[in-house]
Parts: sequence; C-alpha cells; structure tokens
Amino acid sequence: MEIIKSRQNQRIQMVRELSRNAELRQKTGLCVCDGEKLLAEALRSGSEVESVFWKESRVGDFPAFQYEALLPEALFDYASPLKNSPGPLFTVRLPQLKQADAGELQQSRNGECVLVLEGVQDPGNVGTVLRTADAFGVDFVVLMEGCADVTAPKTVRSTMGAIFRQRVLQMNREELLPFCRGRGLKLYAAALTERAGDVREVTLRNAAVCVGSEGRGLSRELLDLCDGEVIIPMRGAAESLNAAVAAAILMWEMCRGERS
Amino acid sequence: MEIIKSRQNQRIQMVRELSRNAELRQKTGLCVCDGEKLLAEALRSGSEVESVFWKESRVGDFPAFQYEALLPEALFDYASPLKNSPGPLFTVRLPQLKQADAGELQQSRNGECVLVLEGVQDPGNVGTVLRTADAFGVDFVVLMEGCADVTAPKTVRSTMGAIFRQRVLQMNREELLPFCRGRGLKLYAAALTERAGDVREVTLRNAAVCVGSEGRGLSRELLDLCDGEVIIPMRGAAESLNAAVAAAILMWEMCRGERS
Repeated sequence: MEIIKSRQNQRIQMVRELSRNAELRQKTGLCVCDGEKLLAEALRSGSEVESVFWKESRVGDFPAFQYEALLPEALFDYASPLKNSPGPLFTVRLPQLKQADAGELQQSRNGECVLVLEGVQDPGNVGTVLRTADAFGVDFVVLMEGCADVTAPKTVRSTMGAIFRQRVLQMNREELLPFCRGRGLKLYAAALTERAGDVREVTLRNAAVCVGSEGRGLSRELLDLCDGEVIIPMRGAAESLNAAVAAAILMWEMCRGERS
Repeated sequence: MEIIKSRQNQRIQMVRELSRNAELRQKTGLCVCDGEKLLAEALRSGSEVESVFWKESRVGDFPAFQYEALLPEALFDYASPLKNSPGPLFTVRLPQLKQADAGELQQSRNGECVLVLEGVQDPGNVGTVLRTADAFGVDFVVLMEGCADVTAPKTVRSTMGAIFRQRVLQMNREELLPFCRGRGLKLYAAALTERAGDVREVTLRNAAVCVGSEGRGLSRELLDLCDGEVIIPMRGAAESLNAAVAAAILMWEMCRGERS
C-alpha cells in the first residue's frame, strides 16, 4: 500500500477536485465516497472502485483494491469533503445509464413506475429519493433541470448505497415525453390544484410522476406536458411536504399494490 | 424600534444562549426561529412571539411586536445560529403539551393515530416527521429517549411551521404504555423481523407506531412493550429507509383510509 505524505500528490489533488467539480465527475464517470458501509455497498454492486484512501489509524478489513493508500490524519482531512470522517475515502465509477440504453431495457412485467424530479436542489433530498426508490423497486428515477448533481458527495452519501443499484436518467424536457410514450407511460404531475386527482384513486402503474421543488413546484413547461395531476391529500393548515417525503408517498402508492 | 449595536447587549446574549442551550429553552419555554415564513406561521398559530431581531437592511412587513430591534449585519450574523440568514431572528414561546393535558384531550372520532420516535438523533429528521404528521393529521407525535431536541433551531426550521400546530409529547418508556392503554391504543413497533405484519394489512387506527434510529432500530425495552410489529415491505438489496421517510409511510398508512 502506498503511503502519501504530501498535499501536492496528484491523487490527493484529483480526489479534492472530483469532490468539487461536477464536470470532472461527468467526464471521468467517477465520484467520491466516504465510509466503510458505502465501500461495502460499492463492492456488493460490482462497481469499479478506482482508489481507496485510508486514515492511517483506521484501516478496514477489505480485500485488496486496485489502488490503495495510507494517509496521515491531517492529510486525510485535507483530502476528504467531510469533516471528521473516520474514512475510508474512495473513488468509484458510477453506472451511467443513457436514455438510449433505457429504451433497450425490457418493460417491467407488472407495469412500470417512474419518478421524475425537477428543481429539487437539495442533495440530501435527491439522495433520499434514490434510496427510497431503490427500496420500493421504482424502475427509473429521472432527474430534470435544476436538480442537485447525483454524483455530488452529499447526494451519494444520502443514498446509503442505493446510488450503485438504482437506475437514474438525466433528461431535459424535450426528451421526457418521447421517453414516456416509448414505454407506454402516462405522465402525471404532483400538484396542489383543485383538478388534481387523489393519489389513492389514480392508477399509477405504467406511470411517471413528476415532483417539483418545495418552494416553486413544477415548471409551467413541465406541467403542460403532463396527462394529469395527482395530489397527496393534506390537512388544512399544512402547505406542503418535504420533497423527499412527497416523492416517497408517491412511490409507495405507485408500487403499493404490487409488492408481495 | 430599538437599535442594538453591541454584542454585549443582554437580549443578544440571551438569543445566542437559547440557540445553544436546551435546558434554558425548556426552562423558559422559548425557542429561536428564523425567517419571515416561520414568523408568519408563528403568528398564524397564535403563539407568543417574544422578540424579533431584524437585519437593518431587511425589515419585513409585519404588525408591531411586543419587542423588536434593528441589528447591523455583522451583529445579526453573530446573534443568528444560521449562516447568511436574511432574517428576521425571533424568539417564540412553544405550546407545551404535558402528558396530563393529553389525557384530557378528547379522543379523535375516527380512531386515533400516534407516532412514537425513539433514538432519532438527527434534528432534520425529527422536524420533517413533525411536518409530515401535521400534514397527515396525526394526533400526537411522542418523542422518547435519544431523539433530537424538538426546540433546537434546526428541528424547528425543518418543521416549516408545523411545530406551532402539531401536538408533541415527551415521554419515557414507563409513561408510554399507560398513555396508550388510557387512550385505547394498540402499540406497534416498526421492525424488520419475519414476524412483523405487512403495514398494508395491519389496522393502524387507534394505534401508536414506534420508529427507531436507522442504525440501531428500537431498543429491546421498547420492543418488549409493543403489542405487535409492522414492516414496510422493501426490495431485497435495500436495507432500510431514512427514518423520516419510514415514519412518513407509516403515518400515511395510519391515516390513509380516513381522509376525505
């Protein structure tokens, strides 16, 4: 195992840059993760772990990696995007699902469930949505304009490993409708309007449901694409749910009838 | 309106201390909040707003308060527990519901729904649970040992105003069972065991459901008090849901049949 002592080390510089630079993550397909639990999840999913950096006081019990290094505490803290992380820090190649590939994936037998997020800026919320989607067996999560970067360290951390399993597509509005039509999906908007159908009464198999930001909701342009609107009924005084909670209820209702 | 210029000002010192000191919040019944939206919610709920501190560049359009002050930017940032808050900062008296009072509250006509949290340490999760409980019409949220302080600034902020409306009880394990029995509630544990009943098949009216921390689940002692266990079915690879998401699904299922 290599021992790194210098901040100028190229790999240290690279991991810092990857933490901060979304373009670089996209170009390389790499993201920066933290912790033994996430490392175990990455291995379990068969993802390519490109490099692992251990705090010298705390090397975990894992099989050998293609590249590993030992870092003194201070250098580790310099390299890590987290404060007081016990480590390890590692870089991993994320599965990149392109829209073209999605077209080739077979339809789910029991009808397909897709969640679409637009303008959900908080990386914790986006990560939590991926985690929930994975737990409930949602077929795709589609991220549209204005969402937190799915490869950002904080998003990845919030997925608790679901990032390595859940199918995620990045799309713009022009691509969404052809995608839905191609797979025979109805497109619904989660909205707080009077004409919206109660989520308990709308059939959400073979459907994609769009959730917007808590403050602004969905864009006019996206609303105009939708076949219908659904609402999660709430008591009078409450105005809205947290975006990750609203998405969770919708995904639960999409999949509710189907799990055994 | 008073103009404060000094960090030594007693009210400035008090608001800083309140942000950090849970005991002082409990003794005074006051908590520290931030932002015009939360201030409007506090007013709407009829809560007593004790003091309001405005950034001098940004005074909002509200009726007069019993105490208001204007602060230069730097002093405002010193007083606020938030970074880069637009303000205002304010202190408000929270409704304190004691167990004895709860006994006197009439039962809900359609059956009662109670959510119990144990060991949920993240203030964002506790706040989100209160927000969701308020939205779905849950009768009580009970906070047991090890939960984030409900009056901490970060918890209050995450409730988005639900803190002023949702009934919250602090209880220890000895008090929980008499509380449930007194109200005719069955007590369920959310658990990942084989004997747990599918949440879609268990009747959760007139029930209290306990949710534990993501890492450790519920304590043995609390599990032993419960009449039964419920599980939110998940796909194979996923291990758990975020605590606020799990609580949301359970509250949704508790109230699902009853809303119009």
